[in-house]
Amino acid sequence: MGLSHLISIVGAGPGDPDLLTVKALKRLKNADVILYDALIGDEILKLANPQTEKKYVGKLNNDGQNPVERQNAIHQQFLYWARKNKKVVRLKTGDPMVFGRGAEEIRFCKENNLTFEVIPGVTAGIAGSSLFSVPLTERGKNNMLLFYACRKVDGQFPELESLLNILKTGSPVVSYMGLIHLEELSEKLAEKGLPLSTPIQILSRISQKNQRGFSTTMGEIDSFFQKHQPETPSIVIIGENAEEI
Amino acid sequence: MGLSHLISIVGAGPGDPDLLTVKALKRLKNADVILYDALIGDEILKLANPQTEKKYVGKLNNDGQNPVERQNAIHQQFLYWARKNKKVVRLKTGDPMVFGRGAEEIRFCKENNLTFEVIPGVTAGIAGSSLFSVPLTERGKNNMLLFYACRKVDGQFPELESLLNILKTGSPVVSYMGLIHLEELSEKLAEKGLPLSTPIQILSRISQKNQRGFSTTMGEIDSFFQKHQPETPSIVIIGENAEEI
Repeated sequence: MGLSHLISIVGAGPGDPDLLTVKALKRLKNADVILYDALIGDEILKLANPQTEKKYVGKLNNDGQNPVERQNAIHQQFLYWARKNKKVVRLKTGDPMVFGRGAEEIRFCKENNLTFEVIPGVTAGIAGSSLFSVPLTERGKNNMLLFYACRKVDGQFPELESLLNILKTGSPVVSYMGLIHLEELSEKLAEKGLPLSTPIQILSRISQKNQRGFSTTMGEIDSFFQKHQPETPSIVIIGENAEEI
Repeated sequence: MGLSHLISIVGAGPGDPDLLTVKALKRLKNADVILYDALIGDEILKLANPQTEKKYVGKLNNDGQNPVERQNAIHQQFLYWARKNKKVVRLKTGDPMVFGRGAEEIRFCKENNLTFEVIPGVTAGIAGSSLFSVPLTERGKNNMLLFYACRKVDGQFPELESLLNILKTGSPVVSYMGLIHLEELSEKLAEKGLPLSTPIQILSRISQKNQRGFSTTMGEIDSFFQKHQPETPSIVIIGENAEEI
């Protein structure tokens, strides 16, 4: 029965093909169809069989597409290929469950009786820590770690108090998609009493050939942006201990 | 010069050998010496060359060893093998930078001019989400995620207010090493007003052959432990949205 055919929702990691898991690589090599995100590079797609159909289903900032419609279109692809009895690999940047809409895709599969699996991947916020020697947790220093997808609602940051609360304990905040609002957010954190000396690391294109790390502080973020324009995607790590070792 | 020889600090992921990264697997196969943690299974060690020296440097709860001395002994192993010009793989469960003392090992390498690299891995808290279909983030629901290594100091949980603050926004707390104090912590969260209906997922031996997931709630945690004894290591996910999809 076509509808029960396997769909693999796969985390591809932060970009370096060597940071795919062994399981992700096996699924890639064995796929009939790959539905891939905007941030999946050619180096990863080239690992698949040349006969495999590769379909771009990604999003880019300001690409004019409606996000709900785009997600629905991905779900319809699941149905379409499952009916044709094809093995689908839904290849997602990083990890499917960390700001990756894995939950929505799982829900669709369950509601439609599509057999699926989810393969976790290395998420960029954690990979950046290893690749740039920026500690996220350290014995005797902090034992929490906040992941945060930055958003602004009505000119405010609804999570501001939560961020402050965590940052004041010395634990870091790892912010995804946070570059665009970073100046404003830093200003608001400073107004609420977070020291201007608090380190900020901006890690751009983590694990890719042109990866770059930038170090600054809360108080220097304005002048930082006058000099530098980090490329996206970037991860921002804010925190008292978030300095390169 | 022996001291500059490469040390690879490698995240091995949650347990399934297929969840190693491709890069971790390459380093394993090419190692002269592997220094491995308590939670690294035979299936992973068997992937290395039979000639590779494999040294256990792990810790287990209540094994009577002093943690500072044990960590120092690992650092001395780095020096010892680097002087012999051997390729060292320091194989750590999960990700080196998430409650894994990667920061201490990096610091030692830097202070001693040992050439090193850090290879990120899939951390258990995130892998559990994929393997048990428990959402960590979802569009329109929550855009934060707290990682927390549970500890009790003088009978209290110093991070209690931070946990509450995050949980009240609907964002989940992913707790490492949290099983032992879970009943007490739940009680304290309930006293502070967190609803007794708040879901709790206990994910045991994630990605291993005997992995198991248990679902309960804040209010039912006492009776849960009367019936079940989840095996360690377990990850605990607490949160309004942290229910299997």
